[in-house]
Amino acid sequence: MQPLADVLGLVNPPITPALVIRRAAMLANLAAMQTACDAKGVRLRPHGKMHKCSRLGKLQVAGGAIGLCCQTVGEAETYVHAGINDVLVTAPVPPWGWPRLAALARLAHVGAVLDSAVQAREASVAALAAGAVLDAYVDIDPGMGRAGVAADQAGALAQLLVDLPGLHYAGVQAYCGHHQHLLPAERVAAHAAWTDRLRGAVHDLRSAGLAPPQVTGGGTGTAAMDLAAGVYTEIQAGSYALMDVEYGDLGDLPFAPALFLAASVVSAQHASHVTCDAGHKALHPNGPAQRVVVPAGSGYRPMGDEHGAIIPPGGAVEGGIVWLQPGHVDPTVALHDAFFVADEDGALERWAIDARRSSL
Amino acid sequence: MQPLADVLGLVNPPITPALVIRRAAMLANLAAMQTACDAKGVRLRPHGKMHKCSRLGKLQVAGGAIGLCCQTVGEAETYVHAGINDVLVTAPVPPWGWPRLAALARLAHVGAVLDSAVQAREASVAALAAGAVLDAYVDIDPGMGRAGVAADQAGALAQLLVDLPGLHYAGVQAYCGHHQHLLPAERVAAHAAWTDRLRGAVHDLRSAGLAPPQVTGGGTGTAAMDLAAGVYTEIQAGSYALMDVEYGDLGDLPFAPALFLAASVVSAQHASHVTCDAGHKALHPNGPAQRVVVPAGSGYRPMGDEHGAIIPPGGAVEGGIVWLQPGHVDPTVALHDAFFVADEDGALERWAIDARRSSL
Repeated sequence: MQPLADVLGLVNPPITPALVIRRAAMLANLAAMQTACDAKGVRLRPHGKMHKCSRLGKLQVAGGAIGLCCQTVGEAETYVHAGINDVLVTAPVPPWGWPRLAALARLAHVGAVLDSAVQAREASVAALAAGAVLDAYVDIDPGMGRAGVAADQAGALAQLLVDLPGLHYAGVQAYCGHHQHLLPAERVAAHAAWTDRLRGAVHDLRSAGLAPPQVTGGGTGTAAMDLAAGVYTEIQAGSYALMDVEYGDLGDLPFAPALFLAASVVSAQHASHVTCDAGHKALHPNGPAQRVVVPAGSGYRPMGDEHGAIIPPGGAVEGGIVWLQPGHVDPTVALHDAFFVADEDGALERWAIDARRSSL
Repeated sequence: MQPLADVLGLVNPPITPALVIRRAAMLANLAAMQTACDAKGVRLRPHGKMHKCSRLGKLQVAGGAIGLCCQTVGEAETYVHAGINDVLVTAPVPPWGWPRLAALARLAHVGAVLDSAVQAREASVAALAAGAVLDAYVDIDPGMGRAGVAADQAGALAQLLVDLPGLHYAGVQAYCGHHQHLLPAERVAAHAAWTDRLRGAVHDLRSAGLAPPQVTGGGTGTAAMDLAAGVYTEIQAGSYALMDVEYGDLGDLPFAPALFLAASVVSAQHASHVTCDAGHKALHPNGPAQRVVVPAGSGYRPMGDEHGAIIPPGGAVEGGIVWLQPGHVDPTVALHDAFFVADEDGALERWAIDARRSSL
């Protein structure tokens, strides 16, 4: 591929701030993850919460992914209506969501994770009312305390999923979000310890006649270890497709930076800095600092909701474009309504971030 | 008005996380600011960057506001196409924006602030090409370093705005964002010092035959002082309509909390906390911490992009609703696609956050 700065120099977004995807880098990332999963015979179900873009999701499915993960009911609805026929909601569903997922399950293969008997009964009632079947997964908490049952409680909930009408017991989920951003050595140790426990839980389920059809989990930071562990049947990675400062700085992941933010310099009144039109509403502050790519050597500091400082100006002039790499891709994408996908010659195509909306 | 918790107890949002406006409180806020401005004969031009909602903006205009402020070209386009016929872009416009604003100026009264001769010439060229006239304001930097010329440089730029074809020199802007959230005593002192300098700058412009038709600025935190100062002809306040933790905690503003976020409890596996479906993508972390309103006495901690912890559970149960007040209203609103406007009996109406999109 051409040097990054050369490609960015050819890109002229029609508006700013604009999220720009370098298509060649994204395609290489998609292929790298799919190839790694295929080599182990493990399903890839990329996470649609990261990009919220059905066009990107369809590209992942066309490349071999089984379907998409979703974090919200709205994402699942958007993806199914866009033609993606297999979705899994990877977070516990609020009561209002079950009838909507059940209705969706008449159009596509729809799964959801659960961590309580209350949710299981709500899901069952909704599925029966819709005349549909929902794939139901036991969500196992790998120690984050966010959602999921303790590993040794998985059997009781799995049995309920088997017993309840309208549900198909489809397996277990164990998503280790807290491992994804550890430095390489710490990540290996944490992953190994957890994998041993998960292997034990799967063994116990098998012994109880509740062998999970799928064990879904994993992420961009742990994918190589997830694939090597031999316990996961499905990988849920998301960020690998576009990457960000947070994952890039780990240094050991085989994925290239593919997402950048173009901002216009709108004020240049000071020797110390210039002001660009990207602030808290264009670059979500969660995660590590946004990185300035062009001009090289400058830093970024938010100056309110719609502005940021480029410090020092580094040759950036009023009316010119500066380029940043987002610190954390997911929440920053949720602030925008489109990606502009750039070819190496600078040509752009607009892809709607259509799953950004909360409902259809 | 009824006690807040009683009203929230009647509200059942169709989805979560959901931004809910208490209509009675919002209407009282709108009336309070309009009445204060009317009493001083000062124009109110509420800031549309806060709510990004043309329906709310039209209510402000129907109540007496001259039009809306916008922070982006996309907001201006959305508001004009929704029927608001007077908009002012209060931040320097990138080059791509001038032709779009000029086209908009054929449909409505459109103004923009500028801080350089380069921008003035771009605006002039675009206005001439569109056969339109743009209101042009000299942006004066009150010391934030974000945009605007120094007060003693305003005359040169004002003269250029007078001289260039296609532009109408409409006045000056001096927006003191850095004063809005100071504690009361500090705010009075900072405001007085700045107002003296602004008064001097306006005097100098008058002496040079460049009397500004409008002096626009001010905000929710300083509105009472802005109105008393006698120098502003137009107030740009935004947050007063809905309020947030940041403004509410100042303690001296006559506006009521009117914006709340409803989240569902989606997991309740621990005695220490329950997990709700609102994280970094529903509650922007810029500003002070999000405040839990119901259950009273609990706190909130983000648990990733789509989840947060309510600590302690305070009686919140799985499947139930918890209520929060956003720390900082503007960037949180930008994460949602609709408000649900609640009457005192809990009835809801959906208002699209239609100016959230970056372009039409």
